[in-house]
Amino acid sequence: MQLAMIQNKIIPLDQVEPALLDRGTFFGDGVYEVLRSYNGKIFALDDHFQRLANSLAAIEITNIDIEQVRQKVLKAFDTAKIPDAIIYFHITRGSQLRSHTFDDSLTPNFFLTITESPDHTEIKTKGISVSTHPDLRWKRCDIKSLNLLPNILARQDAKKKGCAEAILVNNAGFITEGAGSAFFAIVDKTIFTTPLTSNILPSVTRWYILQAALDIEMTIYEKSITPDQAKNANELFIAVTTKDIVPVVKFDNQKIANGSPGKYTKLLIQEFKKLTLL
Amino acid sequence: MQLAMIQNKIIPLDQVEPALLDRGTFFGDGVYEVLRSYNGKIFALDDHFQRLANSLAAIEITNIDIEQVRQKVLKAFDTAKIPDAIIYFHITRGSQLRSHTFDDSLTPNFFLTITESPDHTEIKTKGISVSTHPDLRWKRCDIKSLNLLPNILARQDAKKKGCAEAILVNNAGFITEGAGSAFFAIVDKTIFTTPLTSNILPSVTRWYILQAALDIEMTIYEKSITPDQAKNANELFIAVTTKDIVPVVKFDNQKIANGSPGKYTKLLIQEFKKLTLL
Repeated sequence: MQLAMIQNKIIPLDQVEPALLDRGTFFGDGVYEVLRSYNGKIFALDDHFQRLANSLAAIEITNIDIEQVRQKVLKAFDTAKIPDAIIYFHITRGSQLRSHTFDDSLTPNFFLTITESPDHTEIKTKGISVSTHPDLRWKRCDIKSLNLLPNILARQDAKKKGCAEAILVNNAGFITEGAGSAFFAIVDKTIFTTPLTSNILPSVTRWYILQAALDIEMTIYEKSITPDQAKNANELFIAVTTKDIVPVVKFDNQKIANGSPGKYTKLLIQEFKKLTLL
Repeated sequence: MQLAMIQNKIIPLDQVEPALLDRGTFFGDGVYEVLRSYNGKIFALDDHFQRLANSLAAIEITNIDIEQVRQKVLKAFDTAKIPDAIIYFHITRGSQLRSHTFDDSLTPNFFLTITESPDHTEIKTKGISVSTHPDLRWKRCDIKSLNLLPNILARQDAKKKGCAEAILVNNAGFITEGAGSAFFAIVDKTIFTTPLTSNILPSVTRWYILQAALDIEMTIYEKSITPDQAKNANELFIAVTTKDIVPVVKFDNQKIANGSPGKYTKLLIQEFKKLTLL
């Protein structure tokens, strides 16, 4: 008898529920997005949906209507009635008995959660410590896929070191990005960040930060830097949808400047806040 | 209200079933094994469990008793009563609301299927075609993890080209392994295969094939080769637990030798068969 065993229970194979045959679990065969709302308004919805469309196309999940996904997200957000919410959702290729290849007959699975955003005042005021970790990820980090084990392992390593984020360093010795964030350095009035390639995620928050930087007349330099260069920067920060800008005050145990969030980082936090009101 | 949406249905967050909060789905945060039985006997059980232990340790899933896992697998196999079976199982870190970091309090999830092995006589007799694909995977392919999206995309590309397997080629232009198999070339009486590093899976079948090769007095050379070298080999084959040795007769549309399974490949299939009887 063909069968399945779930935890300790044996059942006939044809009685396994689809949730347990998700290609998302077997292969990480899916993509995700995280949205943030400020005061009842979802920030940068169109940008996130454009990236979602790109991710879906890149892994050839074609059997899905993006507009319907957007309607679902909006319906869930309306139902939740949480003004400052974190909206996570993923779309997987669908459920079937494990098989590497796929065809268009599969129906994608949709899963979403909406939770209340924690208060980030403390980390935004005091800043965080980060530690470096080798970037072990695959070569298509521009796809926001569910293959996140290297990110998890890097973040866990940071946690053990008392740090809030892992900053990933590639074989050539350059910083790519954080395990779950974009990374920025400021020297004088210039903001440095890794150029967009297939090695990093095209962060939506990153794009808005660069707009904010232009608004306050900073110079943008899209260039990868090394950990040593980061340590010697005037200011560092990370950016992520859920928390927008978070100052970094310690990098691999070394204080950045005087160990407090920097002037331009604070200005950028203010500028970014304005963007979320629009 | 914090909530979840599953397909089209909205439910309170605290009512989401654990199967939908599996870190295996959120992150591919788990490992797997595939076993094969021949005539009612599981082949190389100890080797697979040793690799499982290594994979679990590498991703720090510590809260699990490997001996209990083995007992579960054996119990399921006894229940299935399928002499020529394919046993797939994965272990994920557990279920929780999505959070990058983890602690030891999580209970790992176990999922297994036992299915009847298809008959592979035809592909073993006629051989298969393969096509090359860039190796886009992460830098720890020695861990048998659930992060398999690059493998999926490579295999799907091969399928589109009418091929049964994708042979992965790294940035330096060398073959690492197949998307779901080990890769071997034979020149004269020498068998070439990629040396074991963190860039390939330590294939159990590979190890037994090398023993079989020694038994028939072949020379083993653990060396990466290029696609051009592969095309000019006398014989090629892939190896995977579910099918053991499968001759490759076409590589990127080019016939290998006379386009039929080679002499040593056939000898190795015979030798391997003997090992499965032990």
